[in-house]
Amino acid sequence: MMRTRPLKVALLGCGVVGSEVARIMTTHADDLAARIGAPVELAGVAVRRPDKVREGIPGELITTDATALVKRGDIDVIVEVIGGVEPARTLITTAFEHGASVVSANKALLAQDGATLYEAADQHGRDLYFEAAVAGAIPLIRPLRESLAGDKINRVMGIVNGTTNFILDAMDTSGAGYSEALDEATALGYAEADPTADVEGFDAAAKAAILAGIAFHTRVRLDDVYREGMTEVTAADFASAKRMGCTIKLLAICERAADGESVTARVHPAMIPLSHPLASVREAYNAVFVEAEAAGRLMFYGPGAGGSPTASAVLGDLVAVCRNRLNEATGPGESAYTQLPVSPMGEVVTRYHISLDVADKPGVLAQVATVFAEHGVSIDTVRQQGKDGEASLVVVTHRAPDAALSGTVEALRKLDTVRGVASIMRVEGE
Amino acid sequence: MMRTRPLKVALLGCGVVGSEVARIMTTHADDLAARIGAPVELAGVAVRRPDKVREGIPGELITTDATALVKRGDIDVIVEVIGGVEPARTLITTAFEHGASVVSANKALLAQDGATLYEAADQHGRDLYFEAAVAGAIPLIRPLRESLAGDKINRVMGIVNGTTNFILDAMDTSGAGYSEALDEATALGYAEADPTADVEGFDAAAKAAILAGIAFHTRVRLDDVYREGMTEVTAADFASAKRMGCTIKLLAICERAADGESVTARVHPAMIPLSHPLASVREAYNAVFVEAEAAGRLMFYGPGAGGSPTASAVLGDLVAVCRNRLNEATGPGESAYTQLPVSPMGEVVTRYHISLDVADKPGVLAQVATVFAEHGVSIDTVRQQGKDGEASLVVVTHRAPDAALSGTVEALRKLDTVRGVASIMRVEGE
Ligand SMILES: NC(=O)c1ccc[n+]([C@@H]2O[C@H](COP(=O)([O-])OP(=O)(O)OC[C@H]3O[C@@H](n4cnc5c(N)ncnc54)[C@H](OP(=O)(O)O)[C@@H]3O)[C@@H](O)[C@H]2O)c1
Ligand SMILES: NC(=O)c1ccc[n+]([C@@H]2O[C@H](COP(=O)([O-])OP(=O)(O)OC[C@H]3O[C@@H](n4cnc5c(N)ncnc54)[C@H](OP(=O)(O)O)[C@@H]3O)[C@@H](O)[C@H]2O)c1
Repeated sequence: MMRTRPLKVALLGCGVVGSEVARIMTTHADDLAARIGAPVELAGVAVRRPDKVREGIPGELITTDATALVKRGDIDVIVEVIGGVEPARTLITTAFEHGASVVSANKALLAQDGATLYEAADQHGRDLYFEAAVAGAIPLIRPLRESLAGDKINRVMGIVNGTTNFILDAMDTSGAGYSEALDEATALGYAEADPTADVEGFDAAAKAAILAGIAFHTRVRLDDVYREGMTEVTAADFASAKRMGCTIKLLAICERAADGESVTARVHPAMIPLSHPLASVREAYNAVFVEAEAAGRLMFYGPGAGGSPTASAVLGDLVAVCRNRLNEATGPGESAYTQLPVSPMGEVVTRYHISLDVADKPGVLAQVATVFAEHGVSIDTVRQQGKDGEASLVVVTHRAPDAALSGTVEALRKLDTVRGVASIMRVEGE
Repeated sequence: MMRTRPLKVALLGCGVVGSEVARIMTTHADDLAARIGAPVELAGVAVRRPDKVREGIPGELITTDATALVKRGDIDVIVEVIGGVEPARTLITTAFEHGASVVSANKALLAQDGATLYEAADQHGRDLYFEAAVAGAIPLIRPLRESLAGDKINRVMGIVNGTTNFILDAMDTSGAGYSEALDEATALGYAEADPTADVEGFDAAAKAAILAGIAFHTRVRLDDVYREGMTEVTAADFASAKRMGCTIKLLAICERAADGESVTARVHPAMIPLSHPLASVREAYNAVFVEAEAAGRLMFYGPGAGGSPTASAVLGDLVAVCRNRLNEATGPGESAYTQLPVSPMGEVVTRYHISLDVADKPGVLAQVATVFAEHGVSIDTVRQQGKDGEASLVVVTHRAPDAALSGTVEALRKLDTVRGVASIMRVEGE
């Protein structure tokens, strides 16, 4: 029962991801046709540099006029793999206006202004799918949106940036410092020449916004996500983590508050116990841990980036969107009915590991403990180490609101006996 | 834009899983309605014992006449959580004939006769969803059927039975023997009074048949799955595994042959390296490893059974099927277009760990090595241990077809100097 008119697909962008999408569409055309129920045809490819050699792509499909391509009107599905906010946003909304459905890998745009895209899709009765935008090849958006649609998700916590995981894993394994590990990641192609988006947590924050929105059926924007990069994690932090039976990961954490009335989303480095499944995620792999009321604790693991893994996710979406076109149906759209407020970082409740440089004299511990107590932060363990008049105090707290911890640290800095706050790290996953 | 007429759902079975489905449908009715776009109403519950107290379920919904319930004609979705082949099969096909879509958790029926169900669904333009049939709460069927629909899956390898994983984990951790660990599992409620279906691998084999069918787009029946239970795994096997840096798991393995022209599906205990992600799956958790051409290596992890996790999967399906009803559409049906043959176990290629009890005299190793060579099975490592005229030989092979290994073992048994074959175990995941 195969339809004969092929579905027309236009690619916007033909770089790392787009070229792999085009390649697989060609080499696996028969499988795709069988799974969709109709052949798919690559109808146009928009790029910036028309003269670049693009293996396997007929020259007549190449155009630099992406706008004309999305306005052609005969395109069934647009695959947007340009990246960035503009012109991607305008191209996508224009595509909807001209009757196409859209598959995108664009986390930056979705985190910044997903609502505009969802609304345009809804208004024109078309699909917007974006499995590839979070955690590359790992099926995550679909499980959250569909498999867990009958459940209540309370927490999503994951390693969603491969570059930073590679760097932290290298630091953990070799004892290297941050810049040495970054150099290694750059040399091996795991980090870009300008690694800011990765190491400062911008990339992970975009993914956290997308995940929180889907998990909690509410709108979460990039600005709602607390973000701390991992450039200040030191070899000493790893040594402290080891002493606690932990390692350090850059985590994206989306949580429903205990009272269920608000949510939070944040990205920062954190200590997690070695026994936690996320602790053993090595190299550039990604993994996302999901806690749901009925399902319990789930984990999804796999390659978070790379041309071919990301293309796998794009093509899975392409099959679904094409099937929907044939059925004249659409998949699930935006689900934001809960309209839960996003609380600021100060309201996040977690544990902390704080290293202080203090004067090596009697009474310091008592002073420090008093400051914690005054701010309502309860201490779990303290370790003192001293030599030559210099000493360090390592304090691990019980669960406390982030605002209380910040207040504590501010007050600690004012103590004469505290020479410096060497590091503050959250402790998660216990 | 909420429809006012509720969608009517009938439950067939209200045991461990069914009672949780009913509970969540009641407690989370508003969320389900928002996500579906229409309220869902529990319209009838078929059970065997009508007089049993069933908390939260109005008595007038209870019936012992499941057939009449599926024939009522006003039911939108039937949730089948009775289990077993009959009457479940007839009830499901009758439900399709009367216009209902079906959500089922019934691995036994799907593995035995999935084709009949798919055909009935297709003929009547209705949905058949069964996420809960494999690995309980873990989203797996949907990722395989949909997220990876644009990729080529080459292998699915997983721990899909929680009872046996609990027993093997206990043996590994405590050094206990099989029956001691089974007793512990029974006492803790992880094993049923009659554990045959679990420990002999029947449950895992049903899941392997379902996974292989979906992964390879071909029909794989229960009879096509090679099956070996784990009742003969000993503490000595675990000791050998440890010496190799391995542990032992009961694995379901579905593979595409190297030439791509056939597939295999099998269930048996196997050694896997401690570094493999499946090695650290503890207690009754399940996890499934998927290797796809473009996506690479993915893993899905979570609770494989239990009333509430399984209900989570059922309800995710219920939301999807209800949405499809509202859209007058259907989700993906059976995909068996590749029609690949299922090869017998003899054609599976893997590695082996063989322990032999041999006479402690010169020349034995040479004799044994000759037998391996004659059968074309290449040896990787040999370890000899001897005392008091008794000796043991542990041979680890390179990859070889299962038939060649069987021939080798048969010939070894005929050697005068071989007193017995203490154990043969496959080595996977390298
Ligand atoms: N790479 C990954 O591993 C990965 C993983 C997950 C998600 N993603 C997402 O996938 C998207 C694409 O990433 P990528 O790595 O493939 O990027 P890329 O290699 O930089 O490719 C971008 C493509 O877009 C084209 N392009 C740029 N501006 C354009 C314009 N104004 N009009 C038409 N075409 C234009 C470029 O043309 P030229 O070829 O002529 O330069 C290039 O083909 C991004 O949203 C990214 O976040 C990537
Ligand atoms: N339990 C799990 O963790 C789990 C996990 C994954 C999948 N599953 C699958 O889910 C299904 C249900 O499992 P379960 O553990 O919930 O089983 P269960 O506790 O034994 O419940 C079976 C239910 O079916 C009812 N029933 C039996 N025969 C019937 C008949 N002829 N007509 C009407 N009702 C009938 C029983 O009625 P009474 O209540 O009157 O006895 C009972 O309510 C099975 O296919 C199983 O393989 C279970």
